[in-house]
Amino acid sequence: MKVKKFKSIGVIHSPFKGIEGMPIQPSSAKGIDGWIELDPTYLAGLQDLDGFSHIILLYYFHKAKDIKLVVTPFLDDLPHGIFATRAPTRPNPIGLSVVELKRIENERLFITNVDVLDGSPLLDIKPYIPGFDHQQDVRIGWMQASEDEIRTKVSDDRFLGRAGKKAA
Amino acid sequence: MKVKKFKSIGVIHSPFKGIEGMPIQPSSAKGIDGWIELDPTYLAGLQDLDGFSHIILLYYFHKAKDIKLVVTPFLDDLPHGIFATRAPTRPNPIGLSVVELKRIENERLFITNVDVLDGSPLLDIKPYIPGFDHQQDVRIGWMQASEDEIRTKVSDDRFLGRAGKKAA
Repeated sequence: MKVKKFKSIGVIHSPFKGIEGMPIQPSSAKGIDGWIELDPTYLAGLQDLDGFSHIILLYYFHKAKDIKLVVTPFLDDLPHGIFATRAPTRPNPIGLSVVELKRIENERLFITNVDVLDGSPLLDIKPYIPGFDHQQDVRIGWMQASEDEIRTKVSDDRFLGRAGKKAA
Repeated sequence: MKVKKFKSIGVIHSPFKGIEGMPIQPSSAKGIDGWIELDPTYLAGLQDLDGFSHIILLYYFHKAKDIKLVVTPFLDDLPHGIFATRAPTRPNPIGLSVVELKRIENERLFITNVDVLDGSPLLDIKPYIPGFDHQQDVRIGWMQASEDEIRTKVSDDRFLGRAGKKAA
């Protein structure tokens, strides 16, 4: 099965101009504002999105260099499979973040709680719907131990994905 | 910014051989079992994933025909912008579902609460992490009115995306 080529439909802007200081997860991104510049081609697709308080962004990890199937995340000292982490060095480098939608002005979407690198190409916007997206009775494996710790950490090199480097 | 070509890293299997009877959302998919056949190339990436009870699947809406920026979802009688819906006829036809992970046997992942069409090419697996993915005080716009109603509905033509057809 061939997967057709995806395209950038816009750009995500944030205060994170480089990888240093990037939040490794949204609770560190609390209150961090950003905006999306949607390609005007897709403007009609925004109709009624302003009724939703939260949106799911899919974007391209454009700074991810290599694929690393096993990474040592910033949140841990042990290696884990890439699919058990949110690190960018994935076989398909697609990022996923849930952000709060503040308002929409034409093709510009103002968002907050942003944990995305400035300039990230946008692939999709989906409405966040608790009935679809919220799960209960959840186990989070290796992350459980560091759950409290991660609330305060930020990453500085999670995109590098090189041996000996940590990858979020 | 060019987005490089993504590739299928596996196949999602489900009882939904065609679009008819597909659940339009996960609560209709409750208890529906499926499995993922991961390309063995990526087996190392599964390390420690079995500690997570829920996973986020990104997959290719391989049966989506056209891009429709405005759709009349199965859940409503009014048209909405594609980004305010979860319909497949998106500029980048990437599906997102949160499913429960039952167990992993080599490159086969057994999952439940599956709302994915059989044969869908898998793009990514991410661990579901409430600290990242769970939002509170959420508004869901046009879906609010039909929130109760959708708990029982299933879709039969949401992939068609043609004028006059409904698209979920």
